[in-house]
This record gives sequence, C-alpha cells and structure tokens, in this order.
Amino acid sequence: MTSYKILAISGSLRADSHNTALLRAAQKFNSGLDIEIYDGLRDIPPYDMDLDNPQNRPAAVAELRRRVDEVDGLLIATPEFNYSIPGVLKNAIDWVSTDWTKSEGLPLLHKPVAIMGAAPTNFGSVRAQLALRQVFVWTESDVVVKPEVIAFRSHERFDEEGNLIDETTIGLIEGLLEALAKKIERAKQ
Amino acid sequence: MTSYKILAISGSLRADSHNTALLRAAQKFNSGLDIEIYDGLRDIPPYDMDLDNPQNRPAAVAELRRRVDEVDGLLIATPEFNYSIPGVLKNAIDWVSTDWTKSEGLPLLHKPVAIMGAAPTNFGSVRAQLALRQVFVWTESDVVVKPEVIAFRSHERFDEEGNLIDETTIGLIEGLLEALAKKIERAKQ
Amino acid sequence: MTSYKILAISGSLRADSHNTALLRAAQKFNSGLDIEIYDGLRDIPPYDMDLDNPQNRPAAVAELRRRVDEVDGLLIATPEFNYSIPGVLKNAIDWVSTDWTKSEGLPLLHKPVAIMGAAPTNFGSVRAQLALRQVFVWTESDVVVKPEVIAFRSHERFDEEGNLIDETTIGLIEGLLEALAKKIERAKQ
Amino acid sequence: MTSYKILAISGSLRADSHNTALLRAAQKFNSGLDIEIYDGLRDIPPYDMDLDNPQNRPAAVAELRRRVDEVDGLLIATPEFNYSIPGVLKNAIDWVSTDWTKSEGLPLLHKPVAIMGAAPTNFGSVRAQLALRQVFVWTESDVVVKPEVIAFRSHERFDEEGNLIDETTIGLIEGLLEALAKKIERAKQ
Repeated sequence: MTSYKILAISGSLRADSHNTALLRAAQKFNSGLDIEIYDGLRDIPPYDMDLDNPQNRPAAVAELRRRVDEVDGLLIATPEFNYSIPGVLKNAIDWVSTDWTKSEGLPLLHKPVAIMGAAPTNFGSVRAQLALRQVFVWTESDVVVKPEVIAFRSHERFDEEGNLIDETTIGLIEGLLEALAKKIERAKQ
Repeated sequence: MTSYKILAISGSLRADSHNTALLRAAQKFNSGLDIEIYDGLRDIPPYDMDLDNPQNRPAAVAELRRRVDEVDGLLIATPEFNYSIPGVLKNAIDWVSTDWTKSEGLPLLHKPVAIMGAAPTNFGSVRAQLALRQVFVWTESDVVVKPEVIAFRSHERFDEEGNLIDETTIGLIEGLLEALAKKIERAKQ
Repeated sequence: MTSYKILAISGSLRADSHNTALLRAAQKFNSGLDIEIYDGLRDIPPYDMDLDNPQNRPAAVAELRRRVDEVDGLLIATPEFNYSIPGVLKNAIDWVSTDWTKSEGLPLLHKPVAIMGAAPTNFGSVRAQLALRQVFVWTESDVVVKPEVIAFRSHERFDEEGNLIDETTIGLIEGLLEALAKKIERAKQ
Repeated sequence: MTSYKILAISGSLRADSHNTALLRAAQKFNSGLDIEIYDGLRDIPPYDMDLDNPQNRPAAVAELRRRVDEVDGLLIATPEFNYSIPGVLKNAIDWVSTDWTKSEGLPLLHKPVAIMGAAPTNFGSVRAQLALRQVFVWTESDVVVKPEVIAFRSHERFDEEGNLIDETTIGLIEGLLEALAKKIERAKQ
C-alpha cells in the first residue's frame, strides 16, 4: 500500500513558529499520509510576471512548482498577518498558480488542499484562513471545508519543546488529514 | 504653500505594469500632491518576525519604514493575483505594520491611504482592493472610501507609450487624489 | 433514468429580475436536471432564533426546509446589494442552516450547491458571490467552484421578453449545471 | 449642550439576545450620546426593488429611512449567522441604502456608523463584522475603525439579569462610543 505524498507549507518563517509546529505535529500522526515540510519559502523571490515562464523562472520557484506537481496534496499552516494571509505565503502561491504559456499546466488546479492555522491571539487565524479560501476559488483547488483547524491562543497548546499537547487541536488535525486523504482518494478514482 | 508628500507603491513588478502606469499618471495630475513612486519592492525580503526589530531588520525594510513614516500619505496601485492582493505587496505591508518593541510606533497607524488598481480582466482588481481594505482595518490606517478606482480591461485605457488616455479613469484618479489630500488635511488639523 | 431534483432560488424579488431570468433559462437547458424555481421567498419572515425549532417554526420556513431536504441540490442566482448578498436571500439561508435540537439534521450540510448571479453593473455580482461562498463554508455545503457565472452588464444579455440570448452566459450556465450534476452523482456514490 | 442622536440596531430578534443587551449597556454609559434602540426590525418586509420608491415603500421602511436620516449616527450590534451578517439586518440595510429616484438622498451616505457584536462562540462575530464593513464601503458610510468590539464567549460577559459585567467589553464599548462621537463632531465641522 502506497501512502499519499503531501507537501506542507508554513506561512511563518520564524524559528519557533507555532504554524510550523502544527505541521511537525501532523507529520507524527498515523494518518497514512507522507508529509514533507517545505523549507524553501525564504528563497522564493518576489513575484515578477516578466520572469514567470519556463525560460526565466528562478530556480527555487521552478523547484516549488515541480514539487507541487509531484505531490498528491498540500497542507498549509497559515498565521494571520494584518487580518490576511502572510505576504510571503501568498507570494509563493502566486508563483505556483500560473501558466502563461498554456502548455505547462496549472500546478494548483484541482489540487487537494487542507488549511490550518495558529495564532497567539483570541481569534487565531480565522480571517487569514477565509482569505486563503478565496484565493483557492480562483485556482480551483480542491479545498477541504471541514474541520477548520484554528489554533487560537496557540501558545497554550504546546509544551516547552514545541510539541502539540492540546487534545482538541490534535483531534482537529487528525480529522483534517483524514478529510484530505479522502479528497485525494476520490480525485484518483 | 507646501504640498503633501505621498509614497506610491505598485503591487506589480513587471516592466509594463498597468498599475505602475496608473501611478505615473497620478504623478502628472495637478493634484497639489508630491507623489514619489517607490521602486524598492524587489529588495524587500520575505517577512521574518525574528528579524523584525530595530537591530536586525534588513536595510531595505528599515528604509521603507522610514519613508512611510516621513510621508503624509500612501497611494497604492494593486493588481489582483488569485482573487487577492499580490504576495509581494502584502509582504511589504507586513514589514511596515509592526512594532514588537512598542517603542518605534506603527508606521501605518492613522496613515492616510488611497487605493486603486488595474487589471486586464473584466473585473479589474475588485477582489484585491476589498482584500486590501480588510488589511487596513487591522492597521487602523485612514483609507479613502470613494472614489474606488478600478481600471478593468486596463489594456484599453492606455496608449502605446503607456500613457493613461481613458477619461473615466483619469477623472476617478483625480477624485481619489483630491479625497486623499482632504484626508491628510483633516488629519493635520 | 431519473433526473436529479434541483431547487432554484433567486435573491431578487422584483418582477423583471435578471437573476430570476437566469434561473428560467437554466430550466430550459437540456441538462438532465429537474429544476424547480422557489417562489416563496417573500413569505419567509425575519429570522428569530426563539422560533427556530420544530414546534414554532413559521409554516413557510418549515416548507422551505423540507424542500431543501428533498432535493438533490440547490441552484442560487444572487444579485449584489451593497457589495454583499441580498438580506432576503441570506435570511432564507439563515432559517435553513440550523438544527438547534440536534435531531432534525442540517438541511445545507453536504448539500450540492451551484451559484450564479447577474447585475447591470460592470462588476456583476462578483462580491456577492464571494460573500455567499463564505456562508457555505460554515454550512459545509458542497459548492461548485467553477465555472463562475457572473452576468455583468446583465441588461445586454437578454432580449425584450427576458430570454437569455448571450452565448457566453449560456455556455457558462451549461457548464455550471454539468458541474452540479457531477457533484450530485459523486455524492450519491 | 445638545447631545448627538444615535439609532441603535441589533441584528438579533431573539428575546435574550446578547447583541441587544450590548446596546442596552451602551445606553447606560455616560457617553454624551442619546442612544435609541430600534425595535421595528421585525416589521421590515423582504426587499423588493419594485416597491423601493417614495410612492410604494412599505410604511415600516419609510419610517426606518426617516429615522436614519434624522439621527447623527448609527450603532449596530451584529451576531454572526453562517459566517456573515444576519439576513434580517442586511435586509434592513438594503432598504435604507438606496435612492433610485436620485431625489431623496442616500440615508447611509457619509453617515457615521459604529459596529460591535456578540456571539457565544470562541470567534464571536469576527467574520460578520468584517462582512458588514464591506457593505459600508459601498454605501460610503463613515465607519469607526477601532476599537473593534468583539464579545466572543458572550454568555460569560453578562449577569443573570442580562447586564454587561465584563470590564474589557465595557471599556471597549466606551471607546467605541467615544470614537463615534468624534466622527460625528468632525462631520459637523
């Protein structure tokens, strides 16, 4: 039995990011998903349409597009910056959502996607996650609707080593991964 | 009589951007505003909270924060990428919206801001502009509500040298700059 | 072969509504869907949680909930009022989205839904449709992502008898109904 | 010294509504505002553009438009239904936002507005309030940006008689009323 391959992307670059920690927690669950955490976000340059073609695309971007193409689904953990998606995460999505040549294919088209998010505030990443859902309407990705994983007051949900210890959040993530696996399974039928 | 200083930011990096062209058009109007177009967006690195403090902030970011502090208002021209704000524009906003030390001040707080946008599609940058307005709720910037300048089918609005020739758009931008000037004037009272 | 049953709801009550006209056009297509247009919206009273239970629910509401339960999917045509969903449409959704007793079931849960919209303005019902998509995230309905049917400048798309004559819109609606039928088919598997 | 007149509208019709209770609390503060709570929402019929003119408008609607015209500002308390504004509240806004004759004036244009909201859930009325802000972009109302009053887990904030006893919420409402009064004062200059 082969397990589905998932590329996981955290919208936060800071070392002790709770969003990255959520992804690490997801890796450890017995979900039947093979989750790899993307660590190249820092190398993705600002989106420039003049470079967005097979000849001129920066190497880090070409690599990210290739990886999105290869995996069965995406798992995104997004903090909320200014009531919306971090620019750094949105910038990566901008680079992998296009096909101006109409010959390469759209990496995000019909791609199964699961969203979660953590934030230290009372309202977690509620607004960022909704903003992200709107993005995936355009790309026509196949986004898991529920459960929504909104780890508000996220600092209360991890131990000192950054391990997720909150049972509610653990249960939600398990549900999310299960829903993602089902979406992938259906898409493959 | 001194004129108000405006920093103008285009969310598109491509050479022939219609959004940058809107800003150039705005510069030429007899608005009483001194509009300078920011050209450093390409140098703003991905937002990293670990570096977002006076000691570690990248030079391009420190410079952008300084300029936002100095000017009387902002003029933003945003394309629409994936039904939302370009990541590259949002990333710059993320860097200039913070003050983790609580000693530097929030560059965007109460800052007068005017928004416009161009896109070649039928629905212009409608969705991106609304997404951007939501961002400025958090920053508590003082955003001009109307007129909304939505240059849809933007390729029909410029001549071959990239000059804005569409009378409707010209009138809207004039109205926007006037509204921005009024906001600044009121804020200074 | 039995065809799927669809309840179609127009968010506009005016007699010559382009949104209702879109639904009438959809009825005539050879889509294999049995589309019935709901005409009871005018009788739905303002939502009141105190009445939202099997004992006290107004008759028109109970009937709408029953019909939503019975059909295989929903087709909604929404105008845009004030950059959002018409209150009258949202009010009906509010009444059919609940189950405070936890015994009746949630009529909108997993229900296949297709959205379209017409408006005489340049930006059609773009904003209303996105606002409506956000509503269906909460209800966890199974919403068709594409095609998006946005009949902007809608007065140009109908003849004097109110028949849809615009080929682009016709093609989009056909695509939407096909996508809705596929969603229903998958859900039944 | 005359105090400013405010019309307060609750988006919830249920008897023990926390949103209505927030408005009652606001009435008691020493804000210098004369706040009257609107109790006619139940009588506002579904919006019908065919009736939306001085000759045919339902009496309850005509009365609401008149009252909005007369007051200096609005105070709205909105619950969140299905991740958005209650239909019943939006329907009232739809009726008071128009002037198809171009002779009556737009009741909401430039009208100072303050928003708050309560909900028993963890995320309060966060999404409803943002949805409402988008509505007031179209109407070009003069909406208070901060403080945002989001009474999440609202059942913990009132005593058994429905009095607001939570100090944080009390402070936020006082700040909101102060900001509303300032907006009105500036508008009158």
